[in-house]
Amino acid sequence: MNNLKLEKVSGAARAGVLKTRRGEIKTPVFMPVATRGAIKGGVSFEEMENLGAQIVLGNTYHLFLRPGDELIQKNFGDLHTFMHWNKSILTDSGGFQVFSIKNKKITDDGVFFNSHIDGKRFFLDAEKSIQIQLNLGADILMVFDECPPSKIANPTGLSSEKLERKLFFKVLRAVEKTTDWARKSKDHFEKSFASKISPKERPQLFGIIQGGCFSELRQKSLKEITAMDFDGFALGGLAVGESAIEMYKVLDEMCPMMPEEKPRYLMGVGTPENLIEAVSRGIDMFDCVLPARNARHGTIYTWTGKIRIANARYKEDKKVLNEACGCVVCADKKLSRAYLHHLFTVGEDLAKKYLTIHNLYFYQDLMRTMRAKILTNEFENWKDEVIKKLSV
Amino acid sequence: MNNLKLEKVSGAARAGVLKTRRGEIKTPVFMPVATRGAIKGGVSFEEMENLGAQIVLGNTYHLFLRPGDELIQKNFGDLHTFMHWNKSILTDSGGFQVFSIKNKKITDDGVFFNSHIDGKRFFLDAEKSIQIQLNLGADILMVFDECPPSKIANPTGLSSEKLERKLFFKVLRAVEKTTDWARKSKDHFEKSFASKISPKERPQLFGIIQGGCFSELRQKSLKEITAMDFDGFALGGLAVGESAIEMYKVLDEMCPMMPEEKPRYLMGVGTPENLIEAVSRGIDMFDCVLPARNARHGTIYTWTGKIRIANARYKEDKKVLNEACGCVVCADKKLSRAYLHHLFTVGEDLAKKYLTIHNLYFYQDLMRTMRAKILTNEFENWKDEVIKKLSV
Repeated sequence: MNNLKLEKVSGAARAGVLKTRRGEIKTPVFMPVATRGAIKGGVSFEEMENLGAQIVLGNTYHLFLRPGDELIQKNFGDLHTFMHWNKSILTDSGGFQVFSIKNKKITDDGVFFNSHIDGKRFFLDAEKSIQIQLNLGADILMVFDECPPSKIANPTGLSSEKLERKLFFKVLRAVEKTTDWARKSKDHFEKSFASKISPKERPQLFGIIQGGCFSELRQKSLKEITAMDFDGFALGGLAVGESAIEMYKVLDEMCPMMPEEKPRYLMGVGTPENLIEAVSRGIDMFDCVLPARNARHGTIYTWTGKIRIANARYKEDKKVLNEACGCVVCADKKLSRAYLHHLFTVGEDLAKKYLTIHNLYFYQDLMRTMRAKILTNEFENWKDEVIKKLSV
Repeated sequence: MNNLKLEKVSGAARAGVLKTRRGEIKTPVFMPVATRGAIKGGVSFEEMENLGAQIVLGNTYHLFLRPGDELIQKNFGDLHTFMHWNKSILTDSGGFQVFSIKNKKITDDGVFFNSHIDGKRFFLDAEKSIQIQLNLGADILMVFDECPPSKIANPTGLSSEKLERKLFFKVLRAVEKTTDWARKSKDHFEKSFASKISPKERPQLFGIIQGGCFSELRQKSLKEITAMDFDGFALGGLAVGESAIEMYKVLDEMCPMMPEEKPRYLMGVGTPENLIEAVSRGIDMFDCVLPARNARHGTIYTWTGKIRIANARYKEDKKVLNEACGCVVCADKKLSRAYLHHLFTVGEDLAKKYLTIHNLYFYQDLMRTMRAKILTNEFENWKDEVIKKLSV
């Protein structure tokens, strides 16, 4: 099934429409993160729809532990019904969370890990990950992969050359495992449908390319993963500690080699500047906790750079957060910086909610603007101008 | 000015319309608490209006400290504009908060206290309290009063008789001070208007009756306070540790002696049962942090008693919180107990918001129902029936 319809390519930047069984998603798209069945900060899904979110991300690891994918499936049918979100949902594989747990044991087949909640021991592998995602009723599932770290500890004082070599082999093993698990994920995914489901009702499965910042390993992973017929391809293992320059280098090399007719998803990225740079290189999809987390910590995005709402300079500032913003907080309610500064300073829940809505709207607005600029072939000029302003 | 129009008296229960310069308030009325310029739990004022709130309470002590009444007045004109709430606001005098601070010194004129935020020393007296409330642009102001404790410590092991006597004199001094400060509050209030303001644009000032659970002192306070021409009368110093029975006894004695044509406000009360009992004795107005605080702690009001949403029995419960409830969470979104149980258990902000909306709606619904039952003369029968159900 051809799930991505490209409408325009401007330079390497792409504007398209991604079809899932839940509807159409205009790309490039940013997917807000509904970790545990809710957007953090007290923002409702109705508010998410109003600010333009087309698809949200659910976390397999968190939902598996609480309330449990089987509980959701048995009582509600799917995560959509459980949390009252009728548009598309993409679920991650749980791998990223599991690999960042300290108390774990990785085998060739999967990972033993202790729950961060009660320490209970669990095992996650490709089949289990896909089954959880199927139980959740995700519209886009991700294969189970191993996300290696970008740096490794050096307790024995290895030379930088030897350390690099050690990291290389660590990442190589992750790439090999990722390919193996991708195949297993796909097998389990295909088996679960048989012939009874029409392509229109079928969810999609995306492959994940690993390889850290090693060109050789990225190419190996890309070759092996794209050889399998996935519905889309993600770049994993980025935004895990490497510099933006290193990340852009990976994108420069990978994007031209990725199948043109399939959606490209850069996992866990990033800042507004990151999104613009990645779109300019041909990425279609993003997810990141940054806009919501920054909101909760008082860092606010505007079209002329970030502001820190806790700053005393906003104490008597009657202006809205951003005149150019069309969000509920700025354009409808017209709440002052002074009021938001006050709410944030005293620790009112309402501050978190308003600031999260503003930041998530900003990200949606950024994506909509990029899409419009690609469609009218003005993307490159716009990019240079706007990045200067954003980095103030 | 006759600010209260009584529409119906059923037994001792009253249904009326209280007029402020901001509009009409149907009584009996419950006033949700917007302590620091926001309803706790992340509920917006738009949501408050939608759930039927007619008037909210602002806290003089908190707003004086942050962001400061003068900052609000200078930049926004009033608290309404600052926090975007266009209906009536009642402000407390700050006395209750100040008297519950440990590090304070009470003089005949007022109270020296240390801010709970940074320990900075401040002084609050009648003039200052009224001026803050005027700066905030409150529609109903409260006189500065001394709220004595209902119990006192007994480090030297006094006999219960001597202890009672000690408490009596403590409360007596509070009553005397309250009368003195009521006069000073009224003087400052009147002076600030002169003749330039029409009665329609003028805010209102309520007197406060103290006296603890001592009949003699309550009567003395009532006599002295009602001798001054206030726009309404409040019973203070209740719900501070005494039993419900003791509180109802005070109401039984006080209500018949309070001016019939003036609104009667029972400060800081209470549970749904308390509200029903107080309305049945002739109280018109209430405020309390309980419904919002209980929501944040997972205790939910329904027409058939309280439920604790954290209870494992709700894990797979697809029902709404309360079938008989018309709130956004129950009637519009129809969110399941299972989903709310999950959000609450994992600590999502969205749980606080939804549960607060539900509980505040329940309180508004309770007041509306009482009003309707008074108007149709069915209050007493309804009361007996509903209290049985609520106390399940």
